[in-house]
Amino acid sequence: MPAISVRAAEMPASPIRKLVPLAVQAHARGIRVFSLNIGQPDLPTPPEAFEALTRIDRKVLEYSPSEGLLSLREKLSEYYNRNNVKASTEDIIVTAGGSEALLFAFMACLNPGDELILPEPAYANYLGFAELAGIKVVPLAARIEDGFALPPIEKFRELITPRTRAILICNPNNPTGYHYSHAELTALRDLVKEHDIFLISDEVYREFYYSDEPATSAFSLPGIENNVVLVDSVSKRYNECGIRIGCLVTRNETLRSAVMRFCQARLSPPLLGQLVAQASIDTSEAYLRATYDEYISRRNLLVNGLNKIPGVYSPMPMGAFYTVASLPVEDAEEFCRWCLSSFSYEGETVFMAPASGFYSTPGAGRNQVRIAYVLCKDDLSRALIVLEKALEAYKSLHS
Amino acid sequence: MPAISVRAAEMPASPIRKLVPLAVQAHARGIRVFSLNIGQPDLPTPPEAFEALTRIDRKVLEYSPSEGLLSLREKLSEYYNRNNVKASTEDIIVTAGGSEALLFAFMACLNPGDELILPEPAYANYLGFAELAGIKVVPLAARIEDGFALPPIEKFRELITPRTRAILICNPNNPTGYHYSHAELTALRDLVKEHDIFLISDEVYREFYYSDEPATSAFSLPGIENNVVLVDSVSKRYNECGIRIGCLVTRNETLRSAVMRFCQARLSPPLLGQLVAQASIDTSEAYLRATYDEYISRRNLLVNGLNKIPGVYSPMPMGAFYTVASLPVEDAEEFCRWCLSSFSYEGETVFMAPASGFYSTPGAGRNQVRIAYVLCKDDLSRALIVLEKALEAYKSLHS
Repeated sequence: MPAISVRAAEMPASPIRKLVPLAVQAHARGIRVFSLNIGQPDLPTPPEAFEALTRIDRKVLEYSPSEGLLSLREKLSEYYNRNNVKASTEDIIVTAGGSEALLFAFMACLNPGDELILPEPAYANYLGFAELAGIKVVPLAARIEDGFALPPIEKFRELITPRTRAILICNPNNPTGYHYSHAELTALRDLVKEHDIFLISDEVYREFYYSDEPATSAFSLPGIENNVVLVDSVSKRYNECGIRIGCLVTRNETLRSAVMRFCQARLSPPLLGQLVAQASIDTSEAYLRATYDEYISRRNLLVNGLNKIPGVYSPMPMGAFYTVASLPVEDAEEFCRWCLSSFSYEGETVFMAPASGFYSTPGAGRNQVRIAYVLCKDDLSRALIVLEKALEAYKSLHS
Repeated sequence: MPAISVRAAEMPASPIRKLVPLAVQAHARGIRVFSLNIGQPDLPTPPEAFEALTRIDRKVLEYSPSEGLLSLREKLSEYYNRNNVKASTEDIIVTAGGSEALLFAFMACLNPGDELILPEPAYANYLGFAELAGIKVVPLAARIEDGFALPPIEKFRELITPRTRAILICNPNNPTGYHYSHAELTALRDLVKEHDIFLISDEVYREFYYSDEPATSAFSLPGIENNVVLVDSVSKRYNECGIRIGCLVTRNETLRSAVMRFCQARLSPPLLGQLVAQASIDTSEAYLRATYDEYISRRNLLVNGLNKIPGVYSPMPMGAFYTVASLPVEDAEEFCRWCLSSFSYEGETVFMAPASGFYSTPGAGRNQVRIAYVLCKDDLSRALIVLEKALEAYKSLHS
């Protein structure tokens, strides 16, 4: 049997995935499992999305342009301009989800062996794309005590080597929910400018920022127009993760031409998803407002509830729909496994994501979990009760 | 301005793409351009595909499983079994078009710097995916005099080095239309078995094989079950290139687990495309037959017509919907450019793909073009007249 490649053998397997079979077994034993582990929103896709599918007036579902349909890129540009991101239609390349935009950004900005500085905890799949692109992720710890704020800029500076080609941030952040401030982004900008490296900014949660302060996009930072690569997706904004439509946005024309050659190799982004995304951008303010309000009240319920459980601590996240909380356990992965395999309270249990999967530093975040608030408030309330009971039972088992 | 990566700078730009602006300009001058250059079929997508879109009974367009919807994988397995390819549901991983299946196959089977032997002329984007994966393509010339048959197996053997990890074939072939015989595939099998390397078989044109002889799929070759990776797509079969649904099929479980980790990193294949693909597999025999018959009669018209033009030679392809023809010109790329920029006959001209883009050996195929028969017969007849006139005019210009 021929050997698979080293990069294939070394692709990181997520600790969440490892737990999925246990959740399936718990379900099979008749236990109700609250899925706090996933980023699949339960909120409805806008009606405009479904309407678009009934209005398709084509005889052939043909290739779209490699850069995406012009009509979608125009709509996206309008959306960005409404949101103070001055991206022109030409700056925007449509991709198969934010995922493809990330992979192409890594491959276009970094040579194999080049270094990408990444504040952690961070979205686990960044590590997978880094493995595919053959690049080296240099982690920089954000601390729960600081609410997972951007690490001090001197810490970034210390990590810069001749092979550093880019810094990657996710803003608002998955998994922490932290939203980087204007001051933090300005400090990053100065560093990026000084070393003339790329700043890749994943803003797929941009719509979910729970503050009246104006948000700053990396794309709007002056003086580094050719350094910034914005990665975005309609997945979370319109609850349509399955259509796989995202984009890579940059004013750097050389980079765009390079990315376009990648795009041409894979021919085109999904046509049907593009039609749906385009219609979704036209959805009502009321739809977006309802989604936003729902997440705020879920966040308040969850985070306040977590902090009332003895020994649990969660910062109050200002964005996205996740929080990273510390638990009064030594090994959160072990505890999450135990919740699924050996515990239930009144026929219910919780499925949380061990935070270790969001760190590339071994041992980091060992007592932390990521909790997504994508369940309705009744379920979240109930999950909090179950979690408290689980921690009590686990403690008495280990004391 | 930060430098882009070497792999991005070195991504091959297709000579077809370079000509597109000239075609646009010709069109703007009021000239009718027959697009013989592309693989975008003009035939309709089956009605079942569109019906599926009106029947979507979901509130959320959510992520599908990373390996694709079970219902689609079951349908694909049924399809393969009907066509003598004994692929189980478990063997099948759904991808974003054949493109993603190819990229994942390259990345999972070969380390950066490893070698892939590829008969040429070959689908131009293989070179792009090879660049992305950092692997080395070792070309092996097929000859127009042999109708682009598989090069003798000794020629493959001569190219094998300790870094050879895979052989890639496209069957039926794009761009040549050649269909590999059972004897050719058996010879390949023996070599693959002897060296225990991978055989990647791109069969996206599998439905378009114009012979009553039974076709052999690489997947059915005995004794190399763990070596074969089948790459496929519904794009051409059902005229739905835009939905981006393909698959990677292999019995090699280790390879599948590795590919699945790539799939998990990109979350899921397009949901809407999967629903359409699944419905398309149920389309009528009559639909498939009509498509097939149409291509046969177009092929006969085109290839017989080409061979009647003085100095032009095209083998009779037994599959796909392309042929590679030699022209009585020194530099076909120059001639193709001239057709678009400086020639018209009764207000019409032709856009052909210079074959140089399908060879990685510099200078190979210099007098050849790829012609796709994806236009209706009236247009093909007219294009043949225009091509003959263009060759006459070009000859008198250069003599």
